[in-house]
This record gives sequence, structure tokens and C-alpha cells, in this order.
Amino acid sequence: ESRLPGFATHQIGVRFALVFQTKNAWKFPGGLSDPGENIGATAVREVYEETGVRSEFRSLLSIRQQHNHPGAFGMSDMYIICRLSPLTYDINFCTQECLRCEWLPLAELAQTNATTPITTRISRLLLHGLERGFDSIDLTMEELPAVYSGMFYQLYHRQLPQTPKS
Amino acid sequence: ESRLPGFATHQIGVRFALVFQTKNAWKFPGGLSDPGENIGATAVREVYEETGVRSEFRSLLSIRQQHNHPGAFGMSDMYIICRLSPLTYDINFCTQECLRCEWLPLAELAQTNATTPITTRISRLLLHGLERGFDSIDLTMEELPAVYSGMFYQLYHRQLPQTPKS
Repeated sequence: ESRLPGFATHQIGVRFALVFQTKNAWKFPGGLSDPGENIGATAVREVYEETGVRSEFRSLLSIRQQHNHPGAFGMSDMYIICRLSPLTYDINFCTQECLRCEWLPLAELAQTNATTPITTRISRLLLHGLERGFDSIDLTMEELPAVYSGMFYQLYHRQLPQTPKS
Repeated sequence: ESRLPGFATHQIGVRFALVFQTKNAWKFPGGLSDPGENIGATAVREVYEETGVRSEFRSLLSIRQQHNHPGAFGMSDMYIICRLSPLTYDINFCTQECLRCEWLPLAELAQTNATTPITTRISRLLLHGLERGFDSIDLTMEELPAVYSGMFYQLYHRQLPQTPKS
């Protein structure tokens, strides 16, 4: 079947890539969480700020842990990769942050050398999700009340048949 | 089939639970990362410190994000749940940290009310993994070199058939 499907509602993580100005590599948009901000909200906000595209959070795909990360003030850095669905498609990007910003075919992104190892792996993961269903790659989110504080937390894990998403 | 298999090499996350003294609830052992410490190393160290059981890291299962967590100094807390394999089975626990520490049958842990919602969900996830294979629930780890710094980072995601674990 075609590896370049038309715009479905679940294609943003799939086809969306940024080139950052400093190096000629395609990268996914992203950035730092504000205090008290949920993972998915950070992803949606950063994608909008960097590209002008509005989107919805779908799932968590991957986590990278890196120590002594230059952008993390010498602390360990947790970089969390989310899958989003687009609500709009027009790109309006900041030329100070990147050279180009395009909807790039996922199959091309999975093949190119002009990217990072993480982007290649996530692209392959998304291609797999397109073919087998995203439930094969997703960690879905559930919001649960903390037992003693009464506050809510967000729990991400593989979805099970016997625990339907609330 | 039996839900209480004999001790295989991959049963620690499955059968191992702690009761903390303050509340009468079964919980998995765990604790805070030291600076520069990998997720899996923290899990292995904390399990040893709290229970005396030696183990190996297998995979990442779940992430919880909680804001204004009391134990996180008012910051947002990222709680990461790992699957470990036991290397030893004898329990030697600190009576200051918990009342009891036992190898609890996973099926019992998945059913009991004397636990937290997270422990119940993870127990169900592990039962599912026992029945269908842990590759249905695992996020496996790969260590990759950072492109520019030459340092290594750890990347966790669903395993794909076409990207065998290095």
C-alpha cells in the first residue's frame, strides 16, 4: 500500500518535521515544559509556537534520558516524545529557530541521513503504527486521583484490552 | 493455565511488593535517582536498598506525571516504573521503611483493594505480559551516541521487528 497517505486526522507526528538552523538536520518541534504543565500540553504549545500548527495530544511514544545535557543546565535531561494529531495544517514558523519547516513524508524522514538517530527511530515507529495501528506503539494517558492528596496525576502505559481508557 | 508460575528469570516486577508502614497498602519498591544515574540503575539500587534483592533492569513500563508532589519539593514529579528480573530471592528489608515485604502472587496483587490504583494497573499489565509475552508491554532501552557531544544517551520506546535491539 501507499506509504504516503492523504491527510488523516492522525498524521502530525507522522509527517511533520523542522530543520533547525544550526545543523542541516530534520528534527521534530519541541521545547521545555513550563512549571506545572502536563507533557501533552507542552508538546501542543511548543508545536504551535514553533510552527503555527494547532494540534491535539494523542500518546507518548518514547523517552530519552541524557546526563550533563548542555540545555539542561548540567542536570539530567528527560526528553519525552509525543504523538499529536493536527487540527490545522498551515505552517507559520519563526525563521530565528529554523531554516525550513515542512510537512515531510514520513517514509522520506525514515530513510534520510539528514536527521538524527532519534528522528529516524520515531519515524520508523510511526510507519509501523500507520501499518499496524497506533495502539501497537502508543502509551496512552489516563488521569487518576492521587489517593491521599485528592489531586490528579497522569499515568502513561500500554493500553490493555481489559482496562478501557476512561 | 496457572497464574502462579514458578520462579522464572523474569518475575521480579511480577511478584514483588512492599507494604509501607504509613498506610496499609502494597506498593512496589522505589526511590529518587542520584544525579547522573540512569533510570534502570536507580530501580535496581532502590530495590536492593529497600528489600535486599539483587536484580537486573529489563524495560520501562509506565510514567506518572504529578504536579506539586509533596515529595518533589513542590516541583512536578516524574515517577517511572521499570520491569526488573531478580538475581536473588532472599528478602532483607528495613523495618523503618515498611511493615512487611513479601513476594506476592501477581494475580493477588492485581485483585486486592489494599493497594494503589497504579499498583493495580501495573499488576494487570504484568499479568498481560506473562500471558502474551513481555514485548506486548515493554519499552526497551537502547544506548545511542549523541550526535555532537559524543556522549551516550538512553532511548526507550516500543521495540520494532525491523530494529533489533543492539
